[in-house]
Amino acid sequence: MKTIDLNSDLGESFGAYTIGNDEEVLKYISSANIACGFHAGDHNVMLETVKTAAELGVGIGAHPGFPDLAGFGRRDMKLSPKEIYNLVVYQVGAIQGAAKACGTYVQHVKPHGALYNMASKDSAIAEAIAAAVHAVDPKLVLFGLAGSELVRAGEKVGLSVAQEVFSDRTYQADGTLTPRSQANAMIHDVTVAVDRVIRMIQEGKVTAVDGTDITIQADTICVHGDEPEALRFVQQLRERLQAEQITIQNFGVEHHE
Amino acid sequence: MKTIDLNSDLGESFGAYTIGNDEEVLKYISSANIACGFHAGDHNVMLETVKTAAELGVGIGAHPGFPDLAGFGRRDMKLSPKEIYNLVVYQVGAIQGAAKACGTYVQHVKPHGALYNMASKDSAIAEAIAAAVHAVDPKLVLFGLAGSELVRAGEKVGLSVAQEVFSDRTYQADGTLTPRSQANAMIHDVTVAVDRVIRMIQEGKVTAVDGTDITIQADTICVHGDEPEALRFVQQLRERLQAEQITIQNFGVEHHE
Amino acid sequence: MKTIDLNSDLGESFGAYTIGNDEEVLKYISSANIACGFHAGDHNVMLETVKTAAELGVGIGAHPGFPDLAGFGRRDMKLSPKEIYNLVVYQVGAIQGAAKACGTYVQHVKPHGALYNMASKDSAIAEAIAAAVHAVDPKLVLFGLAGSELVRAGEKVGLSVAQEVFSDRTYQADGTLTPRSQANAMIHDVTVAVDRVIRMIQEGKVTAVDGTDITIQADTICVHGDEPEALRFVQQLRERLQAEQITIQNFGVEHHE
Amino acid sequence: MKTIDLNSDLGESFGAYTIGNDEEVLKYISSANIACGFHAGDHNVMLETVKTAAELGVGIGAHPGFPDLAGFGRRDMKLSPKEIYNLVVYQVGAIQGAAKACGTYVQHVKPHGALYNMASKDSAIAEAIAAAVHAVDPKLVLFGLAGSELVRAGEKVGLSVAQEVFSDRTYQADGTLTPRSQANAMIHDVTVAVDRVIRMIQEGKVTAVDGTDITIQADTICVHGDEPEALRFVQQLRERLQAEQITIQNFGVEHHE
Repeated sequence: MKTIDLNSDLGESFGAYTIGNDEEVLKYISSANIACGFHAGDHNVMLETVKTAAELGVGIGAHPGFPDLAGFGRRDMKLSPKEIYNLVVYQVGAIQGAAKACGTYVQHVKPHGALYNMASKDSAIAEAIAAAVHAVDPKLVLFGLAGSELVRAGEKVGLSVAQEVFSDRTYQADGTLTPRSQANAMIHDVTVAVDRVIRMIQEGKVTAVDGTDITIQADTICVHGDEPEALRFVQQLRERLQAEQITIQNFGVEHHE
Repeated sequence: MKTIDLNSDLGESFGAYTIGNDEEVLKYISSANIACGFHAGDHNVMLETVKTAAELGVGIGAHPGFPDLAGFGRRDMKLSPKEIYNLVVYQVGAIQGAAKACGTYVQHVKPHGALYNMASKDSAIAEAIAAAVHAVDPKLVLFGLAGSELVRAGEKVGLSVAQEVFSDRTYQADGTLTPRSQANAMIHDVTVAVDRVIRMIQEGKVTAVDGTDITIQADTICVHGDEPEALRFVQQLRERLQAEQITIQNFGVEHHE
Repeated sequence: MKTIDLNSDLGESFGAYTIGNDEEVLKYISSANIACGFHAGDHNVMLETVKTAAELGVGIGAHPGFPDLAGFGRRDMKLSPKEIYNLVVYQVGAIQGAAKACGTYVQHVKPHGALYNMASKDSAIAEAIAAAVHAVDPKLVLFGLAGSELVRAGEKVGLSVAQEVFSDRTYQADGTLTPRSQANAMIHDVTVAVDRVIRMIQEGKVTAVDGTDITIQADTICVHGDEPEALRFVQQLRERLQAEQITIQNFGVEHHE
Repeated sequence: MKTIDLNSDLGESFGAYTIGNDEEVLKYISSANIACGFHAGDHNVMLETVKTAAELGVGIGAHPGFPDLAGFGRRDMKLSPKEIYNLVVYQVGAIQGAAKACGTYVQHVKPHGALYNMASKDSAIAEAIAAAVHAVDPKLVLFGLAGSELVRAGEKVGLSVAQEVFSDRTYQADGTLTPRSQANAMIHDVTVAVDRVIRMIQEGKVTAVDGTDITIQADTICVHGDEPEALRFVQQLRERLQAEQITIQNFGVEHHE
């Protein structure tokens, strides 16, 4: 029987500032990527989110980002691989502390925003992240864009990796995402999006923008919950996964039984 | 045979800003309190400092402080015990990540500056810190001012505690430090200071400002190294400790053999 | 004919984080207290808010606060009067730059949150703020709690001051606000609140919690707009002010014609 | 008679962190570029530095940088021209507030670090900076690398500009600085460096690395004072300028007499 993980970015509120709809999204996902206080989140929000996710049986993930609260971690920063290694170690350590304090553990690491995008293409950055994750805890699962440098770097260093696919984006013939600047980058039809995801899971294939079929591995799907429309998509996706007898399941079970 | 621990605050540089003389001080101490990026330090400085301390066999300690880089963590902040719990968990977790990445472990936790001072007198703050340390790792040694609320809170929650004494400060009859605002707060004569420390270690006693002898437990002594004079004091203290056959030794050995 | 100013706190968003409903509130007020990037707001939000307020003819005010984004400037910080002077100078200067770039000018200064509250009671802090405002521009109007130390300090240094009253709070016999910790601190009945404000404007009196009438000067009223209920209150207040032939007007006109 | 301005970066300390040797450097220069709290400096350091510079008759300059204390403003940040406009307005406004509070005025604006370098080559960034400076105060002098986009943008918008030359760097045939990555980028011989500066001032010429003479306008020279060697260079340069009867003079006099 096929399984799939559903992940979402959470714990992005900061002090008096609220972002997201965490309580609602947590009902639908199996893995939570929790901000670690650099690009978003703070020590209060992080502990609260870890606690809630643990109570609901959702896998806890570090979501390390650039030290750029003002830019929400979405802006490229030219940091050395060594500094990227250091900031991943720091943030993963911080959320491991939170997890221990809540009587649970960290399942995975998914870099955020610009760090994720840069790690998809730049092998030096990808290897710095993978080395940092491995150095802190080799049992952590590394999430990366399917077919990316980050996935390769994780495998190279001996980490379990989860290849991530996007339900609302199109792919190019070389397996990369169509840049958002292009007209056909996004998929707006929910039924089409769900169909594509199901095929990626069942057949390991997706049709690229040039009409060719490409091979893709779908271990985890990124979903959002901050808009009502996004939540409806997740609900529809879950119903369809159930109909296809695909189990929604995270990666934590194997490591801790 | 008597033993004593010598601790010092390290890893306080930030980005392009340098504070302290870490490389030199590390030669003389047995425990390093390493800033965790809130009141001082950053992810780069922290990892570098952890690595160097580990190489020299110096016990690694978390030195969590208030989130106040501009005030170097020396300004009182009115935070709830819950927030203090959260920020200690976060900072201890972060340095544990660094320690794991360097192939070592965190030995102790010593709160910094205003957090240390507030925890000495305020039992709610002291208990929040002790609970946070215990929740992250019950084997951690909690450093607190000798006879303070923080020491009591640590013992209450079941942590090993190390009572800290100051060589350059006078004590009042009730065992508290003479406030710096008073003329007789500081001891400037190095020989006197060393004599007092030796007596605290050997007899568990120190003469208060009113002339009475009070009982004090000296497990660890705080020393500084940012000024040449401070370094000379540490050298003199070490020579005297050797002459008195008091071994300089940290707390890490017991937990990890 | 009587006049009154209506002020509200605006420009509190930060990066990707949104707080408040600025566009809507700006329709109802005559003076905007705009965050200056220390406790909230940033250089982008500040300029945008100054521009929009200027277009709508709303008086532009600096809303300086403590350097505490994580606490939204609501936490007491023990800063020296000199540092408070410096941070007010800095923030008022910054928004004056924004005003000049938008072809307008800054009308007033209202300290934010904990700084406002501390300045109400502590004359050293109040005087530091008043001196800073006067040093940057003696034509600025200083907003302070009616009857507070801040009002006194402003008058003492020669500034125009605007005494601020609260529509939803009760007063004690000595003219101070009833602390929020007490059961009778808040007024929830909108009609009662509006009636009290009208009487403060027309008679300069308000009934304290012990039943006695006290004297109060109402130059400006603080209103909020982040909740639908708050907006409805402002609408009701405006209708009543119109019915009583009280003109809503800020303080800028006199200085710049 | 020829004149030249000597400028240096000052006010870069932050909280408990000290950088530079401001008191000493101020004796030798005619213009101070004072950090504005984004890449370095804070409201306390800024006011203190403005006050000291004013007392010594040194021209006060805003030294706006990227919001990147951790990177000291030396790291490229991909910000939109609009955000760069906003952050220059904010920082120039802040230091104008400080100058007014100290009874003086701001003479010039020199962008810092990565912002300066990016503005040298990227016309959109250069124009955003020039527009911001002009919008806040059209009498401000804009400092830019001699022959750069920033100089062109300043002239285009109608600002007075000061072309800056470097005494310790070589130039390429196209007038740009030789990148530091190349072996011949730096000039280590103090006499050679001083000779080159004198020729730039007197003849408007400098010999490029390929041996050709290029035209260069030298209005202001950047000097440093944080190292004893740097201070000795400034002293030697001043002696030579005196011998050549070149007056050291800033740009402030014309605007304010």
